[in-house]
Amino acid sequence: MKVGFVGLGIMGQGMATQLIKAGHEVWVWNRSPRAMEPLVAQGAHAAADLGSLLAGVEVVHSMLANDQAVRQVWLNDTALAGLRGKIHVNHATISIELVRELATAHAAQQAGYVAAPVFGRPDVAAAGRLNILVAGAPEAVALVRPLLEVMSAKVWPFGDVPERASITKIAGNLMLASAIGSMAEASTLTRAYGVSAADFLDVMTRTLFAAPAYQGYGKMIAEDHYQPAGFAMSLGYKDVGLGLAAASAEKVPMPIAGVLRDALLEALAAGDGELDWAALAKVAAARAHLQDRRKS
Amino acid sequence: MKVGFVGLGIMGQGMATQLIKAGHEVWVWNRSPRAMEPLVAQGAHAAADLGSLLAGVEVVHSMLANDQAVRQVWLNDTALAGLRGKIHVNHATISIELVRELATAHAAQQAGYVAAPVFGRPDVAAAGRLNILVAGAPEAVALVRPLLEVMSAKVWPFGDVPERASITKIAGNLMLASAIGSMAEASTLTRAYGVSAADFLDVMTRTLFAAPAYQGYGKMIAEDHYQPAGFAMSLGYKDVGLGLAAASAEKVPMPIAGVLRDALLEALAAGDGELDWAALAKVAAARAHLQDRRKS
Amino acid sequence: MKVGFVGLGIMGQGMATQLIKAGHEVWVWNRSPRAMEPLVAQGAHAAADLGSLLAGVEVVHSMLANDQAVRQVWLNDTALAGLRGKIHVNHATISIELVRELATAHAAQQAGYVAAPVFGRPDVAAAGRLNILVAGAPEAVALVRPLLEVMSAKVWPFGDVPERASITKIAGNLMLASAIGSMAEASTLTRAYGVSAADFLDVMTRTLFAAPAYQGYGKMIAEDHYQPAGFAMSLGYKDVGLGLAAASAEKVPMPIAGVLRDALLEALAAGDGELDWAALAKVAAARAHLQDRRKS
Amino acid sequence: MKVGFVGLGIMGQGMATQLIKAGHEVWVWNRSPRAMEPLVAQGAHAAADLGSLLAGVEVVHSMLANDQAVRQVWLNDTALAGLRGKIHVNHATISIELVRELATAHAAQQAGYVAAPVFGRPDVAAAGRLNILVAGAPEAVALVRPLLEVMSAKVWPFGDVPERASITKIAGNLMLASAIGSMAEASTLTRAYGVSAADFLDVMTRTLFAAPAYQGYGKMIAEDHYQPAGFAMSLGYKDVGLGLAAASAEKVPMPIAGVLRDALLEALAAGDGELDWAALAKVAAARAHLQDRRKS
Repeated sequence: MKVGFVGLGIMGQGMATQLIKAGHEVWVWNRSPRAMEPLVAQGAHAAADLGSLLAGVEVVHSMLANDQAVRQVWLNDTALAGLRGKIHVNHATISIELVRELATAHAAQQAGYVAAPVFGRPDVAAAGRLNILVAGAPEAVALVRPLLEVMSAKVWPFGDVPERASITKIAGNLMLASAIGSMAEASTLTRAYGVSAADFLDVMTRTLFAAPAYQGYGKMIAEDHYQPAGFAMSLGYKDVGLGLAAASAEKVPMPIAGVLRDALLEALAAGDGELDWAALAKVAAARAHLQDRRKS
Repeated sequence: MKVGFVGLGIMGQGMATQLIKAGHEVWVWNRSPRAMEPLVAQGAHAAADLGSLLAGVEVVHSMLANDQAVRQVWLNDTALAGLRGKIHVNHATISIELVRELATAHAAQQAGYVAAPVFGRPDVAAAGRLNILVAGAPEAVALVRPLLEVMSAKVWPFGDVPERASITKIAGNLMLASAIGSMAEASTLTRAYGVSAADFLDVMTRTLFAAPAYQGYGKMIAEDHYQPAGFAMSLGYKDVGLGLAAASAEKVPMPIAGVLRDALLEALAAGDGELDWAALAKVAAARAHLQDRRKS
Repeated sequence: MKVGFVGLGIMGQGMATQLIKAGHEVWVWNRSPRAMEPLVAQGAHAAADLGSLLAGVEVVHSMLANDQAVRQVWLNDTALAGLRGKIHVNHATISIELVRELATAHAAQQAGYVAAPVFGRPDVAAAGRLNILVAGAPEAVALVRPLLEVMSAKVWPFGDVPERASITKIAGNLMLASAIGSMAEASTLTRAYGVSAADFLDVMTRTLFAAPAYQGYGKMIAEDHYQPAGFAMSLGYKDVGLGLAAASAEKVPMPIAGVLRDALLEALAAGDGELDWAALAKVAAARAHLQDRRKS
Repeated sequence: MKVGFVGLGIMGQGMATQLIKAGHEVWVWNRSPRAMEPLVAQGAHAAADLGSLLAGVEVVHSMLANDQAVRQVWLNDTALAGLRGKIHVNHATISIELVRELATAHAAQQAGYVAAPVFGRPDVAAAGRLNILVAGAPEAVALVRPLLEVMSAKVWPFGDVPERASITKIAGNLMLASAIGSMAEASTLTRAYGVSAADFLDVMTRTLFAAPAYQGYGKMIAEDHYQPAGFAMSLGYKDVGLGLAAASAEKVPMPIAGVLRDALLEALAAGDGELDWAALAKVAAARAHLQDRRKS
């Protein structure tokens, strides 16, 4: 199939690569053109601009950073006109409000909007082992599903309303934030009693919490080392914000998310926006003034 | 070895059974004598009272329900005198304050106090597959370690200060409560958008959160079914209380634990104290008034 | 002076009336024209549209409901062009983000932007006894200050940066929300012990908390009667949202505001958006399941 | 009347003085005898010990620091026997749990237990202008009411169940803590926008919040000066703890109190236990890292 891919950051690179490997004719476009080079080297075609990319494909994937980037690339007359009669598979984690705007704008162009947010870090994307949540009109989803399968360990269908895939991703990220926040608090408690975070989290992440989410972030907390960031505090703050905005729109109280919001803000205020969000453990330790104690 | 076991609830049954199977001469005692029968049938000796049990053993294990039961059985002159020169292995999850009192009272009798709290449900105890945290004087721990090993998948040493094993258990329970609270909140959010808790938690507990703690409680939340309780709300409230008391004693702010405390209290106020603590999902759903909505 | 007044809701009515009484030539405009009638009856001139109003005045006041209304009326080329060389006194409680946009847009037209949010209910506005916070360019503030004085018990200057008056109003509203939330929680506690909210709040609001903010809302809570709303729950939710957004922009953790947000959301989810926000006491009582108890 | 007064700290001094001035025969006793001297100088009689004090009076007031002191002085066989047939007026702010124990123990001696907690600082006590909450058996309350009146601006009756006066005091203290916490958060927000705490709180405490509770603590926050403590952070932590314990006993979720608990703990962890609890503003400012900013 002739497939477009827009947004070639580190995640997009890995995902587009899978499409090429699977034998599709992949057209790529990225605001900064250098990012296209590695894909062209693997057989992709570089489009001169978004318009010409859209002209030549049936399906276009995009993996952009946030609401702002998605708005800028897609919510304008040229881009929307270019999508007429085509299917857009949006992998970005964006606000429910924007999903709704996009779905409406696509429908007005008889374009299909498929929400397909992903779970997985860049190395997982590069290995074609993402978990992809998908929702959209049944025919559109049926058409793009083989494309999603080449990028993923598993595709998880969430029906025909795009925002349902999006809310699942957003809620999943809240669970991740909670897991980190919980390790941060609990390990601060044990440290105050002389049990190191490493010893405590070693037990937990090898028994009851023997899961990727805990093991990866738990290791950072155990080592008190948060760079390079796998997922930056500032992005974590943005994602918890998407959760709280979605909760607000449908009137769902979320007190744990509220606590996490404040802890993330405190990290940003401390100038730690570029650290991995596992550094929530630094916030918990600072509040307990652990550094002023003799123990641990 | 001649070993005593006091406190033959459903956990104690499974644990004492392992000691018998391993060939030890096991003496049991329980306030309600009927609980001794199944163990006697397996070869244990029933003691007439705690004093006579203590007179005949080197090491005594106890697995009592809470601070109150532990105080009643152990913090009196007779029991403490009976412990003189022996080792007491306390498996109960109790307050740090009580651990400190016990350690002092045992020391005054030249008795060894070994804290050995466990992770695992009754079925895990029955299978001899618990995870046991242990801390106490090195010689005492060395002596009892083979006994712990027959009950456990793994023994995790936490040094020579008993409260360090205890705080690790307490902090681990806070992580469990947080995991449940997090699933409760996040699945309430997805439900408000038309994604069932079952569909949402299916993805999460098979990917990022593929761990026992999430899978067991996640299943209850997915099915909205909280009886029979594996671990009752009222016990969860007690355990979060142990965490907050320990945090208070060492001045550790724990906002997530505070949020969980309020949700557990709300469940108790609703009369749901006997449900499994996974029913925190009911609290989250009630706050969002999900039952009054058309969706999900 | 020739003065315009835009936005003639119940607050605007009272405020514009003071300007008329003080002898100014007041031109009014309102989207729904009927609201102009009572003012015309008092001597105001009704403008045909915003453009013609702006053409004839030096200073224009506006008192619109929220960000959306302010954006719609003022952030368009016609309105902004009409403001050229004039001074706009904005009394609405709006987001800091919008204040910044407005200040920039006004500056581009050599128009003066004066932020002048107010404290006071409609009856206070009608009596010309508001407390008005004011900030903006010194000459502009000096020019409009006499106009503010006729509407107010006191004018409180906050310097030359408009957003400083705005943040003061927003922070003041957070204090109001906290006061209500605090009475809600505390009176739920006393009720659980058999002391009615009326008896409890009677002591408090006649001693330590003998202040308007507590007496007015305290009376509603004591009587458990929240209609008609002096300030609706939905507006309270909006205002706490302004506070949290401002906190986010400058990275200020606000855990009490976060708790209030969730309680307000819970009230909205319960369908109580039209009640006075003193009905936060209903939320607190529902969480404690007070209605299922014998006491109080 | 022959009246005893036990517990002559700075509050007790002022209160006992009023009884002497009113012409009663006042017998005093205090663990540290020097505290009796100023009262003896005013005409009081110093008792050799608690027993001889009790032997000579009909009514005994006590104003002790906390649960521990009250337990030590009153919950022993000698003291209780000495109370037989007499009335004990307890002014201390103590836990509901202890109130219940005391009421039971007094009843067993046919002694009357009157709970009479007070609102007011030492200077207010010295001026005989306290607000006193009172609850207990009607005859007992009737008998002691004239004594309370000489110490107070007003006596507030709360019926015949002693704990109802106690819970009212505890809930009132939670409202005070909330008021401080709210000023702390809100003034941190305005400071982040360049509005000083002094300018912000000046408006608030002279308008909507023109009440003693806000003006006293607001002044400390405005001046960022928390010594000498009128009411120390460590006592504030204790009192919020009484509130949370009472809430727990009757299953009342109190999320604002939970937030305050964590902020108070953070202050204690920072070593600020001896500062006035208005220093919650320091905690809020530290979380926002205000000291690292250029503004305010």
